[in-house]
Amino acid sequence: MKRFTLELQTDGADHIVNLSPLIQEHGRDLRGGGVLHVFVVGSTAAITTMEYEVGLVKHDWAEVLERIAPADARYLHEATWNDDNGHSHVRAALVGPGVSIPFQDGRLLTGEYQQVVLMEFDTRPRKRTVICTVIGHD
Amino acid sequence: MKRFTLELQTDGADHIVNLSPLIQEHGRDLRGGGVLHVFVVGSTAAITTMEYEVGLVKHDWAEVLERIAPADARYLHEATWNDDNGHSHVRAALVGPGVSIPFQDGRLLTGEYQQVVLMEFDTRPRKRTVICTVIGHD
Amino acid sequence: MKRFTLELQTDGADHIVNLSPLIQEHGRDLRGGGVLHVFVVGSTAAITTMEYEVGLVKHDWAEVLERIAPADARYLHEATWNDDNGHSHVRAALVGPGVSIPFQDGRLLTGEYQQVVLMEFDTRPRKRTVICTVIGHD
Repeated sequence: MKRFTLELQTDGADHIVNLSPLIQEHGRDLRGGGVLHVFVVGSTAAITTMEYEVGLVKHDWAEVLERIAPADARYLHEATWNDDNGHSHVRAALVGPGVSIPFQDGRLLTGEYQQVVLMEFDTRPRKRTVICTVIGHD
Repeated sequence: MKRFTLELQTDGADHIVNLSPLIQEHGRDLRGGGVLHVFVVGSTAAITTMEYEVGLVKHDWAEVLERIAPADARYLHEATWNDDNGHSHVRAALVGPGVSIPFQDGRLLTGEYQQVVLMEFDTRPRKRTVICTVIGHD
Repeated sequence: MKRFTLELQTDGADHIVNLSPLIQEHGRDLRGGGVLHVFVVGSTAAITTMEYEVGLVKHDWAEVLERIAPADARYLHEATWNDDNGHSHVRAALVGPGVSIPFQDGRLLTGEYQQVVLMEFDTRPRKRTVICTVIGHD
């Protein structure tokens, strides 16, 4: 079992980062076959896969999440802590903190239009730590 | 670590396929104990668990997704690429491309009314590849 | 590969249980490094991570799920089986039955405000079995 960590700086609300090229830089750790587990530390960001395409990334995804958990709805979390990121927490819990991706011979077995992405849901730019664990054999 | 692949043909929009019987045909690969990782290649389908029951599969699930990401809403993805599956992409990213299931002695440790399902979100019938990776020991 | 099981009693609808302290009691199984897979058996509960904070747990999360899949909407599942938990099934399928968490030297590598939680979506108190599988090395 091997592990590598990605350290990122996000731009804040609704910033989606394409992790696939960053992971692929560690392709030497993906020799043989197995599964790569990708996990973001923290409760206001999430990891999933999607096509990293400008329409989805800059507009469509944000609009769907706004429908589910509007930024300006009333959140008890915000009233309690006098902050503004109640929607960030529920969005992150819904999408989830991680994803596992099969790999073979140095390459993630995702589709051509399927990238691993980090979603920043917090309202301000954040430093994010993504822990990647290689479960497999050489 | 072992791997097997399921090749499926879906009927298009909102088709939900019960993968549990297809996985169980590979029960010999699930000897001993561990976790089976089930992953769909592509950005307009998803994997989760649900009760494979006609009301949920044919009506209720589709209605909830239509509330979250309506098929006829405006998606920049569609305007950009002149296609019709913007909602398919966001639904797939929300549900996620894979699930891991514990197994023991040839059997998935899911509940009696809990099946592993593939959800087709694209608007047309698609061929789908599901990569199953066995993480465990004999 | 090691495995331990948590047996829980939930209070029914919208009860969120903080699993992190229960998992940490098994910290001896988390020596070395790897990934812990946490999975709930059944189709009306789910597992994810969130900040276990009263506003989110008692109010905000329930309100978002009520927006997505209202308890009093019409579900064909309920008409078919004469029960009342159609919304429970779709909520559980959306959030998903499990999560994997990296660990190192006896400790989950979650954030300070990020707990592993079980979400009870069924309408009545339930006994729940959570299967935890340790994928790693000493």
